[in-house]
Amino acid sequence: MYKKILVPIDGSENSLKTLDHAAELASVLGSKIALFHVIAPLPSTVQRYVQVNNLVQEVQGFGQEVLEDAKKAIAKKYNLEIETDLIYGDPANEICDKAKKDQFDLIVIGSRGLSEITSIIMGSVSRRVARHAVCPVLIVR
Amino acid sequence: MYKKILVPIDGSENSLKTLDHAAELASVLGSKIALFHVIAPLPSTVQRYVQVNNLVQEVQGFGQEVLEDAKKAIAKKYNLEIETDLIYGDPANEICDKAKKDQFDLIVIGSRGLSEITSIIMGSVSRRVARHAVCPVLIVR
Repeated sequence: MYKKILVPIDGSENSLKTLDHAAELASVLGSKIALFHVIAPLPSTVQRYVQVNNLVQEVQGFGQEVLEDAKKAIAKKYNLEIETDLIYGDPANEICDKAKKDQFDLIVIGSRGLSEITSIIMGSVSRRVARHAVCPVLIVR
Repeated sequence: MYKKILVPIDGSENSLKTLDHAAELASVLGSKIALFHVIAPLPSTVQRYVQVNNLVQEVQGFGQEVLEDAKKAIAKKYNLEIETDLIYGDPANEICDKAKKDQFDLIVIGSRGLSEITSIIMGSVSRRVARHAVCPVLIVR
């Protein structure tokens, strides 16, 4: 039913639980999975206090590690075709754009991620994705 | 994977499209479906101008018709076990309570329903359900 499923992950425990849920669904439905990690721009307040180049490298390394670890764990548990992609930008926008551009049939996303506290003020990524995505969105707890 | 799927419908075209999506998923996964229609309390401004008893009967009749029509259409197209339930209350609260109390594994809900315009001000039912449900929520466009 869903040929291509997009699973954004931020490395949080919740996003890995969500991935497991998505992978179970994909293995039943015979879907392909794409893991997606979005690196949000550093706030200018952070840029004032740290060596930006080093931090960018660290953040990018973290993102690649998150994707590779998740891919390994899931590929081992389920027999799935898994792509990974890392990108810079606003997470909710990039997730919606990716799903539209690459014609995904479903986005599976956790209700909470690493930015759980700020989400109360800013509107969480999952809520923005649920509102703006052009395809169905499955929100996992 | 999902044994019991809850599908709230308000009779809007969008909710019937959502039901079709849910039924397709249920037929692939072998899930049971429960159709759920919630009648929101009449606003006091309405109660001032109309024969409340007649209106309550009409609204209830509409709800029962929505459920029966949807059940027939889906049972014909897919080979599914379908329950229906009609209740009075706040739609988002009742949907979340029902899913929790009867241990549903998934709620499938449309992103827009009959209250599309008021939703801009009040926060739509689907957004509140996505935020407060204890089980996964699939939002269909």
